[in-house]
Amino acid sequence: MRAEIISVGTELLLGQIVDTNAAELGALFAEVGLSHYHRQTVGDHQDRLVAALRLALSRSEVVVTIGGLGPTEDDMTRTAISEAIGQPLVPDPAIEDHLRDIFARRGIKWTDSQVRQAERPSDSFVLSNPNGTAPGLICPFGDKVVIALPGPRNEFVPMARGPLREYLRSRDGGEPIVSTLLKIVGLGESQVEKQLLDLMHSTDPTLAPYAKVGEVHLRITTQGAGKAAEDKLNRVAEVIRERLGTAVYGSGEETLESVIVAMMRDRNLTLAVAESCTGGGLGGRMTAVDGSSEVFQGGFITYQNEVKTRLLGVPPAVFDTQGAVSDECARAMAAGAKDRLGVSHALSVTGVAGEQSVSENGIEKPSGLVFIGLATPTRVISVRHQFAGNRETIRARAIQNALAILRQDLLGDK
Amino acid sequence: MRAEIISVGTELLLGQIVDTNAAELGALFAEVGLSHYHRQTVGDHQDRLVAALRLALSRSEVVVTIGGLGPTEDDMTRTAISEAIGQPLVPDPAIEDHLRDIFARRGIKWTDSQVRQAERPSDSFVLSNPNGTAPGLICPFGDKVVIALPGPRNEFVPMARGPLREYLRSRDGGEPIVSTLLKIVGLGESQVEKQLLDLMHSTDPTLAPYAKVGEVHLRITTQGAGKAAEDKLNRVAEVIRERLGTAVYGSGEETLESVIVAMMRDRNLTLAVAESCTGGGLGGRMTAVDGSSEVFQGGFITYQNEVKTRLLGVPPAVFDTQGAVSDECARAMAAGAKDRLGVSHALSVTGVAGEQSVSENGIEKPSGLVFIGLATPTRVISVRHQFAGNRETIRARAIQNALAILRQDLLGDK
Repeated sequence: MRAEIISVGTELLLGQIVDTNAAELGALFAEVGLSHYHRQTVGDHQDRLVAALRLALSRSEVVVTIGGLGPTEDDMTRTAISEAIGQPLVPDPAIEDHLRDIFARRGIKWTDSQVRQAERPSDSFVLSNPNGTAPGLICPFGDKVVIALPGPRNEFVPMARGPLREYLRSRDGGEPIVSTLLKIVGLGESQVEKQLLDLMHSTDPTLAPYAKVGEVHLRITTQGAGKAAEDKLNRVAEVIRERLGTAVYGSGEETLESVIVAMMRDRNLTLAVAESCTGGGLGGRMTAVDGSSEVFQGGFITYQNEVKTRLLGVPPAVFDTQGAVSDECARAMAAGAKDRLGVSHALSVTGVAGEQSVSENGIEKPSGLVFIGLATPTRVISVRHQFAGNRETIRARAIQNALAILRQDLLGDK
Repeated sequence: MRAEIISVGTELLLGQIVDTNAAELGALFAEVGLSHYHRQTVGDHQDRLVAALRLALSRSEVVVTIGGLGPTEDDMTRTAISEAIGQPLVPDPAIEDHLRDIFARRGIKWTDSQVRQAERPSDSFVLSNPNGTAPGLICPFGDKVVIALPGPRNEFVPMARGPLREYLRSRDGGEPIVSTLLKIVGLGESQVEKQLLDLMHSTDPTLAPYAKVGEVHLRITTQGAGKAAEDKLNRVAEVIRERLGTAVYGSGEETLESVIVAMMRDRNLTLAVAESCTGGGLGGRMTAVDGSSEVFQGGFITYQNEVKTRLLGVPPAVFDTQGAVSDECARAMAAGAKDRLGVSHALSVTGVAGEQSVSENGIEKPSGLVFIGLATPTRVISVRHQFAGNRETIRARAIQNALAILRQDLLGDK
């Protein structure tokens, strides 16, 4: 069975946004065993969108549009699908109720233009959208189907990964392409490749490494269904885990922070943070984990030196000698946070995230110089890093490395 | 003159890579004044690529392929173009010399498969590739043209920005497409559209709204060069600013947080945060602004009730009556942060980010219920919000609304 994507939006053609949704959907097609030979991108233009739909329906059984479902005049996916498959748009009271409910909760006035979002082609049914107004639509057309998904990323992703995946799986596709993802920290992409050189050349399963910020993801892929395919993936994953040891921190949807929360929860450990150059980003990442409140107690954002002293008890002498970007300061911050919140573990970050170097007491601190501190029940340590990149990259690497240092300590402390 | 992109590569359809090259090329089309209505993506398949080329040539004057120029069997862009425009491939001695030279310098053995890369359609000419082996090709076809660019990003980008841009500019294209972006907070997409309904129907400049998390971006676009085009955009932007008033918070690269930093810096104001359910994300976003250290002092991540009391002085009675997710708690957190850090302004966030509702003292607190507190030199307020969505969306909306509330206060306080 062939599937085809039509990405809708003038902003895509103008290059104002990159089409990450289409890539995600392509991966989903592969996962559920749909062949995928064409993709089209068209602007917000009724006639061109209708033509694209007709072309897609002439060669593919499943046609999925992304975008153009909003309430405004340039959102024309609903009307274009209606025209292409010859089904009139009908108002759907259930959708309207859902919309009115959202608007009431957000305190936004209901306007007539909203009614457009409550219409759907007559034979279609709805994919619910918990994260936005416009629902997705499944529009059967003979033995083919047109599926309309919203474009905003926070609405598209949950719908694609949830109800759309379920729907596509329930159709009779071919052999699925299945894969498993291993996540690796502390080794670079080329180091990973070097240690797995023989496996990298395998054609079934295939291995593909992807470099991420401060970690490497390794996708193992094969085609097939059921236990045989699963066993094949697991055997290779097992070999890789043996070779790379604890550098493999997790798999699938696991993240470095979710793994840490699980480790600490199992051992009744608690965590606090003290952040300077990351400004709260480390705490933000830890608390993105559902259930983190069992482990994470709180923290301190100490952007100014006086605040480091007032909240964490960093001795002013540290600033007068080594400066705030130093091993001494990182350790004092971690120890102060641990002490003040009575936790078992505290992480600290202090560094130069800006793209200019700074000078403290005549000591040059280059852009990207970051110290990470860790206080545990038995010791207080710090680690010096020199990161490259812009403000955003330096901060992301600092957070990633702080998490890696904490995990390493927890592994050694079993 | 119409231009169209054909992105070539099975890895694009499988979603293994995101098509950033096509976005970059779309922006280039806009810059040089080429209209751009369609994009196609096809896999490494000769017949489908030929069909895509023929479709593109039927409706566009300039067709640009990206990818499929390498030496391997699945690189078939050259042969597909040859077939689509009916020109045989001929060996080009100059390309072969260039290739042999590169291989000699890299110490790689010359093999017969490399010869493929030295062939080109008979009437074509070459775009040199200083960063790789395969040159780009310009293949005139009557009064139309097919242009083939390499896919690897480090080869594509210099070729697109250098010789391709020059070539496209030298053709008799139209006027460049120029645009400006206004950023709006506090109004939904449909409210914006309703207030600008007459302008939304304008065809020059055109207006396109985009819904983002907690804000709306409005792109104003026209075609033309120099001051006349700029004036045209500015006139419309001025009308929009008049109609929407302070809802327009900025333009271009400005963000809500960068605007706040600029406002507070100009007036020597200082900021602290106290975060519960956002766990540091609000501080993280404020400190993502270069120069935020002139304004942002620090903050408190108070994930547990005891920590709210210990660090911020929230009275335990609050937890025993209204609970931590309440107006009272938000206000006490903001006041506590302001007091402890001696700042002029403090923002607080407390709420239910998880997808399950929680019960505090028998009071049901549904998922997405968030209270934002603000302490200023003259008052302490709190605002209740009910957000929809998953953990990530709720937290993002909470942060966005906290920033919007602070900005609103600063505007009133001029």
